[in-house]
Amino acid sequence: MCEASVFSVKGKKEELVLADVEVLRPEGEFIFLKNIFGEQKRVKGRIREMNLVEHRVLLDVEDAPGR
Amino acid sequence: MCEASVFSVKGKKEELVLADVEVLRPEGEFIFLKNIFGEQKRVKGRIREMNLVEHRVLLDVEDAPGR
Repeated sequence: MCEASVFSVKGKKEELVLADVEVLRPEGEFIFLKNIFGEQKRVKGRIREMNLVEHRVLLDVEDAPGR
Repeated sequence: MCEASVFSVKGKKEELVLADVEVLRPEGEFIFLKNIFGEQKRVKGRIREMNLVEHRVLLDVEDAPGR
């Protein structure tokens, strides 16, 4: 299976946002994620890099105090 | 293997940009793509949607006459 794990990156810290992700869709300032179990998340951030062979997606997220 | 085919979308027209893509990285107004054969492309556009189970990535591209 080719789903990916989506991680948020703040500084040097990576945190798993959602595993087994099938669909990613940027929606304005947010990224919509859906995994193969139907679980959905919307996180504020941007795609930093995706590596499909490593099954990893990194998102730049903000703590959003600024805006 | 879990690479994806990356398509550009203009209106209702989809066009293959690069197959067997391993790495995608937004770089400002561009998307950097690299496939498993080491082929690289930079296209002006934004990620519209990715479906990793279908191995498809759609990019919104502009013909860029405006900017």
